[in-house]
Amino acid sequence: MERFPLKSSVSKMATTYQSVYKKGTNEGNGHGGPSGDDDMVNIKPGPHRAADTPTTPTSHGTFQLYEHGTRYSDASATWDAVMFSGLPGEADDIPGIGQYDDFHTIDWQRDIARDRMRHRYIVKKRQDSIWDLIKGAHDAWSGWVCVLLVGVCTGVVAGVIDIGASWMTDLKFGICPQAFWFNREQCCWSNDEITFDRENCSEWLTWPQVFGESREGPGAYIISYLFYIVWALIFAALSASLVRMFAPYACGSGIPEIKTILSGFIIRGYLGKWTLIIKSVGLILSVSSGLSLGKEGPMVHIASCLGNILSYLFPKYGRNEAKKREILSAAAAAGVSVAFGAPIGGVLFSLEEVSYYFPLKTLWRSFFCALIAAFILRSINPFGNEHLVLFYVEYNKPWKFFELIPFVGLGIIGGCIATIFIKANIYWCRYRKYSKLGQYPVTEVLVVTLVTAIIAYPNPYTRMNTSQLIYLLFNQCGISNTDPLCDYNRNFTDVNTIEKAAAGDGVYRAMWLLTLALVLKLVMTVFTFGIKVPCGLFIPSLALGAIPGRIVGIGVEQLANKYPKSWLFSGECSTGDDCITPGLYAMVGAAAVLGGVTRMTVSLVVIMFELTGGVRYIVPLMAAAMASKWVGDALGKQGIYDAHIALNGYPFLDSKDEFQHTSLAADVMQPKRNETLSVITQDSMTVDDVETLLKETEHNGYPVVVSKESQYLVGFVLRRDLNLAIANARRTMEGITGQSVVVLAGAAGAAGAALGHGPPPLPLARILDLAPITVTDQTPMETVVDMFRKLGLRQTLVTHNGRLLGVITKKDVLRHVKQMDNEDPNSVLFN
Amino acid sequence: MERFPLKSSVSKMATTYQSVYKKGTNEGNGHGGPSGDDDMVNIKPGPHRAADTPTTPTSHGTFQLYEHGTRYSDASATWDAVMFSGLPGEADDIPGIGQYDDFHTIDWQRDIARDRMRHRYIVKKRQDSIWDLIKGAHDAWSGWVCVLLVGVCTGVVAGVIDIGASWMTDLKFGICPQAFWFNREQCCWSNDEITFDRENCSEWLTWPQVFGESREGPGAYIISYLFYIVWALIFAALSASLVRMFAPYACGSGIPEIKTILSGFIIRGYLGKWTLIIKSVGLILSVSSGLSLGKEGPMVHIASCLGNILSYLFPKYGRNEAKKREILSAAAAAGVSVAFGAPIGGVLFSLEEVSYYFPLKTLWRSFFCALIAAFILRSINPFGNEHLVLFYVEYNKPWKFFELIPFVGLGIIGGCIATIFIKANIYWCRYRKYSKLGQYPVTEVLVVTLVTAIIAYPNPYTRMNTSQLIYLLFNQCGISNTDPLCDYNRNFTDVNTIEKAAAGDGVYRAMWLLTLALVLKLVMTVFTFGIKVPCGLFIPSLALGAIPGRIVGIGVEQLANKYPKSWLFSGECSTGDDCITPGLYAMVGAAAVLGGVTRMTVSLVVIMFELTGGVRYIVPLMAAAMASKWVGDALGKQGIYDAHIALNGYPFLDSKDEFQHTSLAADVMQPKRNETLSVITQDSMTVDDVETLLKETEHNGYPVVVSKESQYLVGFVLRRDLNLAIANARRTMEGITGQSVVVLAGAAGAAGAALGHGPPPLPLARILDLAPITVTDQTPMETVVDMFRKLGLRQTLVTHNGRLLGVITKKDVLRHVKQMDNEDPNSVLFN
Repeated sequence: MERFPLKSSVSKMATTYQSVYKKGTNEGNGHGGPSGDDDMVNIKPGPHRAADTPTTPTSHGTFQLYEHGTRYSDASATWDAVMFSGLPGEADDIPGIGQYDDFHTIDWQRDIARDRMRHRYIVKKRQDSIWDLIKGAHDAWSGWVCVLLVGVCTGVVAGVIDIGASWMTDLKFGICPQAFWFNREQCCWSNDEITFDRENCSEWLTWPQVFGESREGPGAYIISYLFYIVWALIFAALSASLVRMFAPYACGSGIPEIKTILSGFIIRGYLGKWTLIIKSVGLILSVSSGLSLGKEGPMVHIASCLGNILSYLFPKYGRNEAKKREILSAAAAAGVSVAFGAPIGGVLFSLEEVSYYFPLKTLWRSFFCALIAAFILRSINPFGNEHLVLFYVEYNKPWKFFELIPFVGLGIIGGCIATIFIKANIYWCRYRKYSKLGQYPVTEVLVVTLVTAIIAYPNPYTRMNTSQLIYLLFNQCGISNTDPLCDYNRNFTDVNTIEKAAAGDGVYRAMWLLTLALVLKLVMTVFTFGIKVPCGLFIPSLALGAIPGRIVGIGVEQLANKYPKSWLFSGECSTGDDCITPGLYAMVGAAAVLGGVTRMTVSLVVIMFELTGGVRYIVPLMAAAMASKWVGDALGKQGIYDAHIALNGYPFLDSKDEFQHTSLAADVMQPKRNETLSVITQDSMTVDDVETLLKETEHNGYPVVVSKESQYLVGFVLRRDLNLAIANARRTMEGITGQSVVVLAGAAGAAGAALGHGPPPLPLARILDLAPITVTDQTPMETVVDMFRKLGLRQTLVTHNGRLLGVITKKDVLRHVKQMDNEDPNSVLFN
Repeated sequence: MERFPLKSSVSKMATTYQSVYKKGTNEGNGHGGPSGDDDMVNIKPGPHRAADTPTTPTSHGTFQLYEHGTRYSDASATWDAVMFSGLPGEADDIPGIGQYDDFHTIDWQRDIARDRMRHRYIVKKRQDSIWDLIKGAHDAWSGWVCVLLVGVCTGVVAGVIDIGASWMTDLKFGICPQAFWFNREQCCWSNDEITFDRENCSEWLTWPQVFGESREGPGAYIISYLFYIVWALIFAALSASLVRMFAPYACGSGIPEIKTILSGFIIRGYLGKWTLIIKSVGLILSVSSGLSLGKEGPMVHIASCLGNILSYLFPKYGRNEAKKREILSAAAAAGVSVAFGAPIGGVLFSLEEVSYYFPLKTLWRSFFCALIAAFILRSINPFGNEHLVLFYVEYNKPWKFFELIPFVGLGIIGGCIATIFIKANIYWCRYRKYSKLGQYPVTEVLVVTLVTAIIAYPNPYTRMNTSQLIYLLFNQCGISNTDPLCDYNRNFTDVNTIEKAAAGDGVYRAMWLLTLALVLKLVMTVFTFGIKVPCGLFIPSLALGAIPGRIVGIGVEQLANKYPKSWLFSGECSTGDDCITPGLYAMVGAAAVLGGVTRMTVSLVVIMFELTGGVRYIVPLMAAAMASKWVGDALGKQGIYDAHIALNGYPFLDSKDEFQHTSLAADVMQPKRNETLSVITQDSMTVDDVETLLKETEHNGYPVVVSKESQYLVGFVLRRDLNLAIANARRTMEGITGQSVVVLAGAAGAAGAALGHGPPPLPLARILDLAPITVTDQTPMETVVDMFRKLGLRQTLVTHNGRLLGVITKKDVLRHVKQMDNEDPNSVLFN
């Protein structure tokens, strides 16, 4: 565990810690509110605390007391007084620490440094009293406790959503009169008849039966059809209205935004409690409405909301944006874990697809969190069977080597379907964004629902729940399967073997219906993904792949049945057993389309492998996933999430793309030639000068140089800190006027002497960051991009022979990347 | 795929690429040889190439042509001549590129930059001709082809080792007279008797039988005993002699060294072909000798050797140390994959335990590589059963919630055993290192083997192969299990249910023998791990945990049998079935000890889960692994691999440890106060001055400053480059004398004017790195350590207000970390 630091460093620590913890105390004046969630007012420390804690905020990572005698320490007596007056125990209650404005980038280095200081402070305090020891232990455990809570809550919420959605989906078809809160399956449990056709037990009344009609017949069909449409519209309208009224951030899948947030960006309220509540309720409603959408993506968003909200219970995470992202990574893993019942796949999804900063400690915690969530969900057992997921399947035949050809073919088909989907969806979303359509979200949802319901009902494969369709397609045609898709001319002599057989009429009819369903699903999903209800696209993508997969599978199976002596099949398919499992093809096809749409790789294979529970089929899945990804990459660079990030202009610096160009830092930095760089000198600008500069420019921070003539870099100061410090000094320090010299660094004596008779200087050493990251103007941009990614920078300063030349911000980097890729650099919207 | 760069950048690229590819052309003078493997002479380009390519080597990452007119370009005509004379196609054949001296640290940034340039050059060339297009395609595919080859080779080698080891292990007990190359199992396959006791079929002759004795009886026992000891000694002696004579690097597990190599260190020959051959043969021998060791760690080393050797087929990887490490990471995953039949676990092991630089592309390739290796091994089917691993088990009972208590208990026991093992082993290894014992490695091996054989034979649980022991302990007592460990008073009425029963005498006897075996294994493994034969400790660790696990499991089982009505068992154990599976306890215990020894977390759980093939037991495994890791961390900071790295003084900067101290860059940098910093000025030192400096100091590189008086940082130059450049200039340029001024940067005119009449200046702009990474003196060391880790630096320069203060090398960082942890900083041995 923590080792107690050396004696000498302890005293250093105390002062350092304290100076850092004074940062941003006058937050009340600023933009305020804990970032990431403005709903959490009750957890947020009250503004009265600002009064307890005096004077200027200080810079991050400051170690001013060590430097070589050029720094003021006039205020250190005050610091010490505060330090040992009982406050420091509550030092972390000071509001405003580590806060950022909405839609701004966080500074990872600073937040991580801040956390280490806090940690060192706690380790040091631990020796003082039992109470501090307990607090230290609480702090050490808080990461684990937090992910435990996140896991438990995610499991519970997922269980509630599953139960709710399955009940409401069945409500479209009928009701259980004995207990209306039962879904069809639960309703039929009480039935003693042991029947394979559970769907039609006598306890469950379809709507025609409720109105006295028979189950079959044209009248019943019309009543069913009408009820189906009406319920769908009601659910969709409710879902869209809730989202519109209470939590606009609750729409969509949320994964593009979560990726952006995890890469170090602030979107306040996106992970708040209203978003959580509305997204959960809206998700139940929109899944039940029969729209072509899934609940897996939103589940990740819901889990992340839980992670964000619960992190406020632990100041270590709630008050530190960088640390909070560790919890959010774990939460994302838990979200996938409950969506698919795949804890390992969830962790890999979080690692591969969502997360940005993923230290190994987070890997371990994510795994724990994902496992707990899956465990809780299994205990709730929402589907009433032993398995976690709707489509758990087991095949009894291994795959044959020659099947790799159709599997790769499915991968290529999947890549094409995925590309068509992405392009069409992005086109439509862009149209929605820039046309009048975007102003009528609820109407749009209703129209899409109405069209979907009208077209979907007549085709049994679109009428059923998409998850059920996928399950049906994945399944092998055992003795108990009565769907037309399993209408083979075979007799089951042995329950465990499936003999080779020619397909019956039912299979061919089913294939036509499935083809229709594929087209319908593809078109409807294009229009659905992006409407203002919670909607994910894992399930639709899986369905889009499972349908062609099953069709190809049946084709290969029938070929093998018809030409058992051909060289291709003779070796391995010569016996009487059915050597081809069409369900496996469906699964491979599903993986291919999902891989093409999301560009997941390892996590996709692991999720699919956890769904089936056998190592056996990893090779086919992998072959298809690779083929699909390559086809997708060749046809269009971005996956759906990255495309939506680009569409929305989020400042996401992808850690997967390699920077391929030869530009230099000098080409990218601001200011360009002929412009002047806004700098502050260390000890020769007056308060008025600084305030003018702050007014005239809008930068988030300013480099500090030795003097106007000799622009050697001294440090960096944030606009926010400057504003706060000057306002505070004017209020609390005597004699500060517009003519006071602002002394950020340098010899105080010299500054004082130069002025002699003027007003007293304003010492602001504490807000100066003496350790800004710098690069030279000759540094290749690939190195700079690498530093931005790996160190999580907000900006870097560009020097030449020690002289300051300019600044590169994250936005500059993003714009430059866009420019180099021949895209519009102005599509980067945020800082 | 690759996008073709903008027109303007193409021409830039060409020149840049070319200047970079001239680097180190006169390598013949230097230390030479492709690093990492000096065996690969035939692949290494011949020294004659040096003659084709003229003049001075240039610096890395150089973009001199863009900078603001301060750089010479006198030689660019020559460059172009070379460039378009047909050579550039073979530009990557120039020897000496990217080479480092043995036992030195690599510069990741530079190697990655070099690779990107090469890549851009190939992309550009691709347009020129079909041949270049093919070369471009080959380059794009080479990563995948390389890992495919590594996977295939690893699978094949693992298969050979498995077959060889199982045959030779059986040779200690007897022989198959019909076909001496058959092991016992294969020998008995031809037997028609269907018997559960396969070990004693009539085709297989034990040594007493060969000599005309009966199978049983005292005479037979003595003969068997003697043969056992003699074979063990022969195998061990052979193994140790091979290692000593041909490949000293083939000893041990290799994982500490591979960790170090992957973190960016050069150990030449460690992954060479001799190491590969000797390690493979030696591993078969040492496993067969019955020593307490496993083949899993060495399998990682063998796979890494294959990765290194095969990477030379692809210049992209073979000639670039940073890129090569991507292949090595994938190879490590394949090694674990074949060792345990756990491809996903292998990838996670590589990610968590071994690798340092693990971009997502590598994740995907590692997975592919691991899968191929496992697939090939399964096709070879060395064990003659369907499963990949020796101890594949299936339990038919889920675990009960209350069992978490004994599972956590096992975790604590496991953590303690692991700590005892690590401390004792490190103590003994240190003793060996500093005493005379280290001079007699073969004798030591023989003594250890003799003692092991003598003690091991009488106890059946130590006599058998350790893998078999683990399998036995993991197994549940089904109807077919005849070991005394399964001597329960039960009748199997139904084959599939195991009823509750009291343990018989056999079980109690077995428990005593197992306790003895535990002590023996623990003691022998302490002395074995570190002797000069190939030896891993995964299998011994698993055995050390499986034994107490099984004992605890039997204890709980018997408690449940005796007190079925107690509150603890009543709920879930009240039926007649045996509700406790002692084999599961063995598995949990095994995971606990292995976790404690290696400090693996996620990868451990995933490997164990892949061994058993069920998601069900993840929670117990995880509980035990966590408990064990925490106990281990509390009792001693390091895992066995890190302890061995520290013991050997490798420069490994652990990316898992957090730097906890408050020191600043100024505290760590060289020179310390009162020392002077060795710098080179940009245009005022003569050749003699520089050569004197090179002679008097031993730094690997020198900062370049504006002048002695104004030490503003200009760039950084490597000692190696300086030496080569000056030697070359003296040979090829006319008029260069000791009095010539070395001009690295600055206005050439000014330098010339100042001299006027002197000898011509020596322009060395090309070897100057204008983009060194710098930090300010006030930068906290935690940030500096972070930069070293994440950017893979070799050194960083420390400045204050643009003025150079000093240098921090990786070694300085490592020594500082040691010092802060109260360890001896001089234990860091290498650069």
